Amino acid sequence: MQFNPTLDSIKTYEAGKPIELVVREYGIKPQNVIKLASNENPFGASPKVIEAIAKEAVNAHRYPDDSMFELKEGLAGRFGVKSENVIIGSGSDQILEMAVHAKCNASSKVLMSKTTFAMYDVYSRQVGARILRTPSDQHHLGEFWEIYQKERPEILFLCLPNNPLGECLDREEVYDFLQKIDDETLVIVDGAYQEYAAFKDSQKRIDPKDLIERFPSSIFLGTFSKAFGLGGMRVGYGIAQPSIIQALMKMRAPFNITTLSLKAAIEALKESAYVEETIKENFKEMRRYEEFALAQGIDFIPSYTNFITLLLKNRVDSSEFSQWLLERGLIVRNLKSYGINAIRITIGRSLENDRCFELMQEYLHQF
Amino acid sequence: MQFNPTLDSIKTYEAGKPIELVVREYGIKPQNVIKLASNENPFGASPKVIEAIAKEAVNAHRYPDDSMFELKEGLAGRFGVKSENVIIGSGSDQILEMAVHAKCNASSKVLMSKTTFAMYDVYSRQVGARILRTPSDQHHLGEFWEIYQKERPEILFLCLPNNPLGECLDREEVYDFLQKIDDETLVIVDGAYQEYAAFKDSQKRIDPKDLIERFPSSIFLGTFSKAFGLGGMRVGYGIAQPSIIQALMKMRAPFNITTLSLKAAIEALKESAYVEETIKENFKEMRRYEEFALAQGIDFIPSYTNFITLLLKNRVDSSEFSQWLLERGLIVRNLKSYGINAIRITIGRSLENDRCFELMQEYLHQF
Repeated sequence: MQFNPTLDSIKTYEAGKPIELVVREYGIKPQNVIKLASNENPFGASPKVIEAIAKEAVNAHRYPDDSMFELKEGLAGRFGVKSENVIIGSGSDQILEMAVHAKCNASSKVLMSKTTFAMYDVYSRQVGARILRTPSDQHHLGEFWEIYQKERPEILFLCLPNNPLGECLDREEVYDFLQKIDDETLVIVDGAYQEYAAFKDSQKRIDPKDLIERFPSSIFLGTFSKAFGLGGMRVGYGIAQPSIIQALMKMRAPFNITTLSLKAAIEALKESAYVEETIKENFKEMRRYEEFALAQGIDFIPSYTNFITLLLKNRVDSSEFSQWLLERGLIVRNLKSYGINAIRITIGRSLENDRCFELMQEYLHQF
Repeated sequence: MQFNPTLDSIKTYEAGKPIELVVREYGIKPQNVIKLASNENPFGASPKVIEAIAKEAVNAHRYPDDSMFELKEGLAGRFGVKSENVIIGSGSDQILEMAVHAKCNASSKVLMSKTTFAMYDVYSRQVGARILRTPSDQHHLGEFWEIYQKERPEILFLCLPNNPLGECLDREEVYDFLQKIDDETLVIVDGAYQEYAAFKDSQKRIDPKDLIERFPSSIFLGTFSKAFGLGGMRVGYGIAQPSIIQALMKMRAPFNITTLSLKAAIEALKESAYVEETIKENFKEMRRYEEFALAQGIDFIPSYTNFITLLLKNRVDSSEFSQWLLERGLIVRNLKSYGINAIRITIGRSLENDRCFELMQEYLHQF
C-alpha cells in the first residue's frame, strides 16, 4: 500500500534505552541498572506530587477536563500571562508537532542548528518540509541569520539550552537576532531545560511573557518532564499569543494528556522549592563530571542542563564505549546518530554518578 | 501569522463536559454531579489495575519503555498476532491521527458514515483531505459502495459499533463489502466498542487477526478507554499487517503514552473477568433505558455499546433538554452538533441511572 511519499525520508526516533531492555537483553537485575540516558530528573517528582498521582488512580476511567482549566490557570499565574496564551501537550514534543503541522506543508522550509533535538527534523519531514541546518554543531546566530536571509523559512527552531549538546545562547543575543526576523516566521523557543539554564546563569533566562510580548510570532515551549521530574507523565506547554494558540489547538486531539498527568502537573506547580533543590544538586554533581573529564583529558561542552556531553574525538569510539557501559548496566546516550563521536550523560544521583565514574575510568584506562 | 489553509475549516472537537466544569459553573458539589456523557466505564478500572497504577506513581519521572515490548506482547497474545502487527497510541484516536496523516494529503479523499466519530473528520481536515459521507445517519454499506466506486477514496472509515449512534453492522456483511475494496484503500475498522458488541451479539464480533488476514489493507483499532475502564489513561492500539504498522510508526512521537498508562494497560489485559462483569452489568442497565424510552414514547437506536442514543424528534429540543439536565448536575451528550436532535447517554451505575430517569421524567413530563 502506498503512503505519503514524505514518509520515505523519516527515520524513526531512537529513544534512550529503557531499563527494561537492559534487563531483558543482558539479564541484569533492574535494581542494578543505572539509567543516565534520557535526562530524567533522577530525584523523581516531589513526594507530594507522587502522592497526588497515586490518589488519582481511582479516576483512571475518567477522561481529563479537556479544557485543562486549572492547569492553564496555574501556568498563566506562574508566567504572568492569561489562560488564552497557554496550550498543553503530551510533552512539549507534542506542541512541536502541532506547530510544525499547523504551519508547514510540502512547500515549506524550516531552519535549525546542526546538532539539536531530533524531533524538529522528524515532525518537519512528516509534512514534507525542507530542512535547513546551520553548519556549526552548536547554535550560532550569525549562521542562522545568513541562511534565514536567503531562505526565509516558515519555522525557526531555537533550543535554549540545546539538547543534546548542552550549550545555551544569552537572552540578549537571542533578542537582538529576533528583531530581524519577519512576522510570518514562527519562532519556536524550546525551553525544555530553561529551569536549569536560568538557575546557572540569569543571562540565559528567557521569560515567556517578555518573549511573546516583544516577538508576537514566537512561541515558548516548556515541560514538566525535566526539572519537574514528570517525564513519564508526558506534560508540556506552549506560551504564545492567542492567535497562535488557536491555530495549534486545531491540531490538538482531545484528551491529549491523561487524567493523572493533569493532576500531577497542577500539583507540581506548587512544588517550586523541591524542584529548585534538585536543580542545585544537579549542578553540584555536574561539577564532578567536569572534574572527571578534565582529569581524563576529555573535552566537554559547558552545560546549562541536567546532562553533560563528552566529546570523545579520536580517544575512543562512542558506540563501543556506550555499548561496553550498557553491558555493565549503565545506560548513557550515544550521539553517533547525531553525527558526532560523543556521549551524553544525564547527571544522576551521587551514588549513580560514583558508579558511572568508576565504569568510565575502567574503560578509558585501556586506551 | 498565516497557517496552513487546511486549518480554516476545522472546528475544534467538543469534548463531553467534565465534572469540574459543572462544579465551577453551577456550584454543584462534585459528589452530586453525575457524568453520563463520555462513554467511560462507570465501574472504573479493576481494583488490581488501580493498585498497579498507584504503585507505579514513584516512577512518574521515568519515561516509559518506548518499544512497549510487554504491552505489544500482551496484545499479540490476546489476538493471536505478532508484536510487529501492533501499534500503541494515546487512545485509538491517536492511531486514527497517524493513519490519516500517513495516508492522506490535500489531494486525498476519505469516506465515512454521515453521523459517526467526529475525529475522522478533524484529522482528515488537518491534512486537507476531501470528506465524503454517506447520506443515511447509520452505517449503510450500499451507500458506501456507491460513493466508493465513483470516488475511490484513500481511506474508508467503518465504526463498528458506531459512536455516537450505537448501531453495528454484521461481520458477514462487512466482509462481503470489503472483498470489493481495492488494496490501495486503507480500511479503518474502529472497534472502540467491540467488546460490548461482541458480548451482545456474536455476529457483530470482528476478530482482528481474521480481519487483517482476509483484508491486508485494513487496520483494526481497539482501546482501553471503554470496556477496560481506562479512559483517563489514554491507551489504544492498532492491529494491522507489518507494512502498515511501519508506516504509521513514522508518524508516532516517542513516549506517546505515559509510564503509568503502559503499566495500567499491561495489567488490564489480565483482568478479562472483571471487564466481562462490567459489560454484563452494562446491558442489564441498558434494558432499563430501553424500557424508559418505550414508556415515554421516545425512539432509540438499539445499541451495541455502553451508551444509548435517544432520538427526540419534535418532542423536545436536545440542546434545551441537555442544558436543563446539566444545571441539575447530570451531564449527557447533546448530539445537536452532529446535526441530529438527540441525546447520547452513557449507561451508568444503577443509582446513577435511577437519578437520570427521575430527572428526564421530570423534564419530559412538561411536554
